Amino acid sequence: MTCEFLKGMFDTLLDRGRHLGQGAGLLSDGHRSQTVSIDKIEAQCRALLSGKGEASGRVMAQDIGAAYDTLDDRNKAVFFAMLASAFGAERTAIDSAWRRFEAADTSETRLALLDALEPPRQELFRRLNRAPGGTKRLVDMRADFNDAHRHDAALAEVEHDLAHLLQSWFNTGFLVLRSIDWSTPASVLERLIAYESVHQIKDWGDLRRRLSPADRLVYAFFHPALGDDPLIFVEVALTNDISSSIQSLLTDDRVEIAPEDATTAMFYSINNCQRGLRGISFGNFLIKQVVSELRRDLPNLKTFSTLSPVPRFRKWLASGDTTEKPFSKRQRDAVALLDAQEWSKPALENDKLRPAMFALARRYFLEEKSPQGLPIDPVARFHLGNGATLERFCWLGDTSTNGLTQSAGLMVNYLYDLKSLEANHEAFVGNQIVATSAAIRRIAE
Amino acid sequence: MTCEFLKGMFDTLLDRGRHLGQGAGLLSDGHRSQTVSIDKIEAQCRALLSGKGEASGRVMAQDIGAAYDTLDDRNKAVFFAMLASAFGAERTAIDSAWRRFEAADTSETRLALLDALEPPRQELFRRLNRAPGGTKRLVDMRADFNDAHRHDAALAEVEHDLAHLLQSWFNTGFLVLRSIDWSTPASVLERLIAYESVHQIKDWGDLRRRLSPADRLVYAFFHPALGDDPLIFVEVALTNDISSSIQSLLTDDRVEIAPEDATTAMFYSINNCQRGLRGISFGNFLIKQVVSELRRDLPNLKTFSTLSPVPRFRKWLASGDTTEKPFSKRQRDAVALLDAQEWSKPALENDKLRPAMFALARRYFLEEKSPQGLPIDPVARFHLGNGATLERFCWLGDTSTNGLTQSAGLMVNYLYDLKSLEANHEAFVGNQIVATSAAIRRIAE
Amino acid sequence: MTCEFLKGMFDTLLDRGRHLGQGAGLLSDGHRSQTVSIDKIEAQCRALLSGKGEASGRVMAQDIGAAYDTLDDRNKAVFFAMLASAFGAERTAIDSAWRRFEAADTSETRLALLDALEPPRQELFRRLNRAPGGTKRLVDMRADFNDAHRHDAALAEVEHDLAHLLQSWFNTGFLVLRSIDWSTPASVLERLIAYESVHQIKDWGDLRRRLSPADRLVYAFFHPALGDDPLIFVEVALTNDISSSIQSLLTDDRVEIAPEDATTAMFYSINNCQRGLRGISFGNFLIKQVVSELRRDLPNLKTFSTLSPVPRFRKWLASGDTTEKPFSKRQRDAVALLDAQEWSKPALENDKLRPAMFALARRYFLEEKSPQGLPIDPVARFHLGNGATLERFCWLGDTSTNGLTQSAGLMVNYLYDLKSLEANHEAFVGNQIVATSAAIRRIAE
Amino acid sequence: MTCEFLKGMFDTLLDRGRHLGQGAGLLSDGHRSQTVSIDKIEAQCRALLSGKGEASGRVMAQDIGAAYDTLDDRNKAVFFAMLASAFGAERTAIDSAWRRFEAADTSETRLALLDALEPPRQELFRRLNRAPGGTKRLVDMRADFNDAHRHDAALAEVEHDLAHLLQSWFNTGFLVLRSIDWSTPASVLERLIAYESVHQIKDWGDLRRRLSPADRLVYAFFHPALGDDPLIFVEVALTNDISSSIQSLLTDDRVEIAPEDATTAMFYSINNCQRGLRGISFGNFLIKQVVSELRRDLPNLKTFSTLSPVPRFRKWLASGDTTEKPFSKRQRDAVALLDAQEWSKPALENDKLRPAMFALARRYFLEEKSPQGLPIDPVARFHLGNGATLERFCWLGDTSTNGLTQSAGLMVNYLYDLKSLEANHEAFVGNQIVATSAAIRRIAE
Repeated sequence: MTCEFLKGMFDTLLDRGRHLGQGAGLLSDGHRSQTVSIDKIEAQCRALLSGKGEASGRVMAQDIGAAYDTLDDRNKAVFFAMLASAFGAERTAIDSAWRRFEAADTSETRLALLDALEPPRQELFRRLNRAPGGTKRLVDMRADFNDAHRHDAALAEVEHDLAHLLQSWFNTGFLVLRSIDWSTPASVLERLIAYESVHQIKDWGDLRRRLSPADRLVYAFFHPALGDDPLIFVEVALTNDISSSIQSLLTDDRVEIAPEDATTAMFYSINNCQRGLRGISFGNFLIKQVVSELRRDLPNLKTFSTLSPVPRFRKWLASGDTTEKPFSKRQRDAVALLDAQEWSKPALENDKLRPAMFALARRYFLEEKSPQGLPIDPVARFHLGNGATLERFCWLGDTSTNGLTQSAGLMVNYLYDLKSLEANHEAFVGNQIVATSAAIRRIAE
Repeated sequence: MTCEFLKGMFDTLLDRGRHLGQGAGLLSDGHRSQTVSIDKIEAQCRALLSGKGEASGRVMAQDIGAAYDTLDDRNKAVFFAMLASAFGAERTAIDSAWRRFEAADTSETRLALLDALEPPRQELFRRLNRAPGGTKRLVDMRADFNDAHRHDAALAEVEHDLAHLLQSWFNTGFLVLRSIDWSTPASVLERLIAYESVHQIKDWGDLRRRLSPADRLVYAFFHPALGDDPLIFVEVALTNDISSSIQSLLTDDRVEIAPEDATTAMFYSINNCQRGLRGISFGNFLIKQVVSELRRDLPNLKTFSTLSPVPRFRKWLASGDTTEKPFSKRQRDAVALLDAQEWSKPALENDKLRPAMFALARRYFLEEKSPQGLPIDPVARFHLGNGATLERFCWLGDTSTNGLTQSAGLMVNYLYDLKSLEANHEAFVGNQIVATSAAIRRIAE
Repeated sequence: MTCEFLKGMFDTLLDRGRHLGQGAGLLSDGHRSQTVSIDKIEAQCRALLSGKGEASGRVMAQDIGAAYDTLDDRNKAVFFAMLASAFGAERTAIDSAWRRFEAADTSETRLALLDALEPPRQELFRRLNRAPGGTKRLVDMRADFNDAHRHDAALAEVEHDLAHLLQSWFNTGFLVLRSIDWSTPASVLERLIAYESVHQIKDWGDLRRRLSPADRLVYAFFHPALGDDPLIFVEVALTNDISSSIQSLLTDDRVEIAPEDATTAMFYSINNCQRGLRGISFGNFLIKQVVSELRRDLPNLKTFSTLSPVPRFRKWLASGDTTEKPFSKRQRDAVALLDAQEWSKPALENDKLRPAMFALARRYFLEEKSPQGLPIDPVARFHLGNGATLERFCWLGDTSTNGLTQSAGLMVNYLYDLKSLEANHEAFVGNQIVATSAAIRRIAE
Repeated sequence: MTCEFLKGMFDTLLDRGRHLGQGAGLLSDGHRSQTVSIDKIEAQCRALLSGKGEASGRVMAQDIGAAYDTLDDRNKAVFFAMLASAFGAERTAIDSAWRRFEAADTSETRLALLDALEPPRQELFRRLNRAPGGTKRLVDMRADFNDAHRHDAALAEVEHDLAHLLQSWFNTGFLVLRSIDWSTPASVLERLIAYESVHQIKDWGDLRRRLSPADRLVYAFFHPALGDDPLIFVEVALTNDISSSIQSLLTDDRVEIAPEDATTAMFYSINNCQRGLRGISFGNFLIKQVVSELRRDLPNLKTFSTLSPVPRFRKWLASGDTTEKPFSKRQRDAVALLDAQEWSKPALENDKLRPAMFALARRYFLEEKSPQGLPIDPVARFHLGNGATLERFCWLGDTSTNGLTQSAGLMVNYLYDLKSLEANHEAFVGNQIVATSAAIRRIAE
């Protein structure tokens, strides 16, 4: 019941945002559609930072945010450049702090040096966060930034400061896991439709099929400051064996099973929702939390596995010959055989293709390595890094147009075996060892 | 209704803490009452930081937290010393980063220098926060630290890192204002009884008198990560004039008025609740938020004022003669007259005392200055810094034993006049000018 | 915050239904799809009524309900006949109670007579209500009954007893008004789509247009025992004048206005949701409650009006000649002119049609009377009975196929003028006087 | 999550009551403290019933309720007499309905007769229920009635009609079970303090001891229309054996056990809260619901028992000799021995007393019978009627002044053995057989 008390707290949190409206400063002349000049925004940022006018700090922060929203891409670039140049740490202050530190390395001189090095920009971001909806705006600002300036070395400090703050604020200790179902507010559900990018949700009927049956579950992470806008979500199917086909999971024409009879939880789609939180990883934590919830609620569940895409597989196949270690004759033949087929499910049901493809998949996952000695497949790196095992290749696991085009229909099961997670994780992180099932190891090269 | 969805989110947030239990590492041998050695804790901290064993990061964080809780004061001191020595920034790394920075001041070398200077301790704290209840433990850890080591220069960096993180996490953008009343959970209400230190709440009946009548309100700030444990709260009385006596506000024997008939909101007690958040100020923001809520809900309210204590007044009176500028004859006579009285209300109702006391109060508030040129009274600095006006002295405003002993019964009204808040604030912060009512200015020296 | 406590109460209410499952009696042999014999059900009903086995009363009630659900229409008829014959009041007991009452009319003999006359069936229904979901089942049972047996005199007592109980349980004092918007759970929203029968909601996009814009509102009545299944809902558009066209209200291509700028609230669709509550009217109360909420939240609203259909208008036109008082030449000409048009909007935009139609509408609403002397239009009777005024005819107010086919495109505004509601209501109920605007009165016959 | 939606519903339910205020009719002249004349109230009741002025039915109902609240006991008596005389069924209508029924016993004539017999008073009560807070007022009205007029034959019909409605509205199908703990709103908790009459709750500290430890639970039934005002509650202690002493359960000086380790749930206090619901029994249902919740949440619980008072035991002892079958010599000696003791715990710890008392208790519970052949002890009738077993006598089970004075310190365990509940219940109700443990049966007479 304490919890019920909290409910009210968060009503307030959101409502505040709604009621406060728009502030009255920069945009008060009614020309809201007109871009505010970057000079004016800079001046306002300085005022906000100065602490003068602290009395109206929230309104100021709100005005700056609203002004930012009016900027087009070109002006956003100017804004970011302004942040980089005008709110960095002062060189003279750094030098002077360094001299004191060099003379005597004490707590005091260290802190003073750290202080001199921290750009005022960080404090500026913290103050922008005081505006209603401020956190969401900073997240979106980082998305804007990364869209356009991710590789711009001159702006690297802006990205660093934003990322640093968001990393701290989106500490997993602050996240809230929620199960999502058909009684969830429509405003949340429509976000799932928008955010799902692995296996597209076509319409509300499709969504309902993924949430409403007792053997279909969705879990998401939320953060208090983003309200009902999720950070990441995972779709789960309760089954009686490890599924090898996404179409058979998603079809409407199947027999629903009672959750308490299921032995297996299939994680078949994981989606990050906030582009502005790129690089701040929640997926590992999400899967573990969901496994923990499921085990508590459904003690019959024994097996936890994914059914995962291999999105860059065909691209790799196409580029295969050009790699350092050329494809073997057998592998070249397989690719040729594959390319000779029409890219339709029936055509691919050619008995010779399966073994050829599996051999190629084996090479793709186990032999091709990134400069760090890790698998080149990003999905594989994610699950293996979590301690999962590369369990099984699923030929024609995804026969959607997308699935055939990107991965020749191949999908993969990564097994989350609770007893070996920790050891797998350490072997992978420490020694780049990929935990692999006997079945996959047995595939002929 | 979105909000109702959020409610569930936070149920989850709290429940998680409850269900997860204690972890199974350091204390798993059952000797929970036994202190864990600092060496073991240090090793566990290194493991947590290393990211190895990330799979069980939360459990590790929980174990370290639980181990910390078993430490006595002496061992806590050892723990903090360990944090200071073992998790600081490496001097060689700093020097090397400096050399690269000196050679070429680029984004990259700046970030690398900043990185070298940031102590691993900060990341350690962030990871400790992942444990259920982690935030509250870090707050309490800082309270422990400040109780014992606040002025210990050797540990200043530990304090800096904790303060830095908490400052960022307790950004006002994340706070939630809640009105507290008689239908609030008892578990929250009993905290108010415990945290109230200005005008003690004697028992549940006394508490009820401050919350339940329609003209008595309490507001508090909460933070999602601390659940139902408040950060700060303020008690408000709705009245028809600016009150000059705390006893008449708190008495049970008074006529309740309808909130919509009230013209004045009296803020008569403000309490910080978390010693571990010392120096991270919410009071300014709280008062402004409450004023904003009250104006929206009760448009008839025209006047916002405090009835505030002067806790160090008698101490100042006693030390008066020893200050640089000695008391005048008149002032010395006043103090003597005061000291000659018995410290009971009737005795103090001596007609000569009032003007003498007011003259002394005038000097105390307007002439005595801190090295920064600000008033020496901390309560005055807080309200004047918010832009309030020093409005009125209230002779025998607090006739409780406490009130008579500490402040000779004197209380003060600080007026929150919305039209002049901003200007007052800037004049005070920029030029140490104290906004003072004509009535107080007219008091003879 | 008291309210937050209640929240938990109702969680429990619903959850209970979910967890309890199905009971273990009549259907425990696993042949759930097999119809339970009416004889067995009757025996179970007798046991439930006898109070023997009270310990398992809920389970029994649940079993009977589950057994009822397996019945097909034919067996339901047998079930209702069984209720009529086996659970009525005993004639001999009535006669004997009457003799005692006739001998001495005292409180005691009156109560005894009343008691003898109350069929055991009523208590049976009350006990069936104890099952989880029992109330909803009784509501649906009445819907089944009315579908098939509404005019069956032999079963009139069954209907009377069900209606009597539901009338008592769905007392307006127990109803809860809720505003519904885009953050309402999808499970509630999909019911609106299903229940809307006046102006069909085509899909989720259409639904969103009626809920999500700030100037489009939906309110519904709920009853605690039916959970999230609404009883009735009304759709409201906030506008700047009294709308005369449903298409312009429902179009996506319109300018949204700020709610606080609106002067007018248009009630454009009212839908009863539970067929089993037929004849238990909530509409009157709903409109008044919504008007009261709207006035409190949006003090600028001055005008409250409906835009209502005239669903039987063309049927009346077609049958017009056969009524007692034949159509005048002018009226016959109008009908002929109308029939000569193609039933498409452009064709109907014939200047001569409007005045002819208005004259016919005037006769339809003001001259044609039911045996009780009231208008023959049921929608008119509802709003006029509430005290509304017949304000305006809207030619081509509904140009959907449905609108043209049923009502020749005619719609009507009923004005809810708060000052005259009460007087209008009394004049209508007491003297069959229809409050009519001057504009309509002026229409030439 | 559906449930979260419901939460809002009930916020609305309560809030409505709060905001609507007082109506504007009968009391609008400001003389609220003045009694409204019964004649005026009667006129208002007639208007409410007439349906005229339906538009303002809620306000009318509210006015009548408010007027009722101003009545003193004498005027309430007049009010009830008015209800009895002015709103009963009309004799002429009854006679005429009877004649039609006698002529032809059809559904129609039966319903017409039933209709003629139902007093308009019932419909009046239903309409009074439409006022905000109407249900609570009707409950309290029945409490007032029963306090003063319970045995007044002339008013029996008023009581019958109120009881009939409340019985229907407080159908167990509408009740909501809630667990109450230290995070429950203070406004609910203070009601528990007020309503507890078996083992008085001394203050908030005492309350906390009964709610807050993990092995002390409280459950209550609520009804949506009464909001946070409970109907009945039960206090439960989780233990490792069947407790025989209330003092050892309530003491602060005990070792708390983990709920999952407990084997036994002791129901040690059951309290009805609403005097106006006297005779509408929830206790049976409450205990069964709580047992069902506890078994689901704590599968280790094997034993469910009460520790119950014997409030009239000493009165019976005192009157023992005067009963039909006189006390035996042995029994008289026991009473004499008992009376010779001082009524303090130490004095009662006389070895000879125990067997003597047990023999008397055996007679009291097993031999003394009411005219219906049931035990004379009301608490025994309640638990035995629920199917519990008379398990054990607890000598000096309650050594409070109250316990010694009323029951010579005797308490009783009634065992709720799930396997035999149903059979026990039927044997008790059908054949007045008291399920008794072997131990009690073995007690020498």
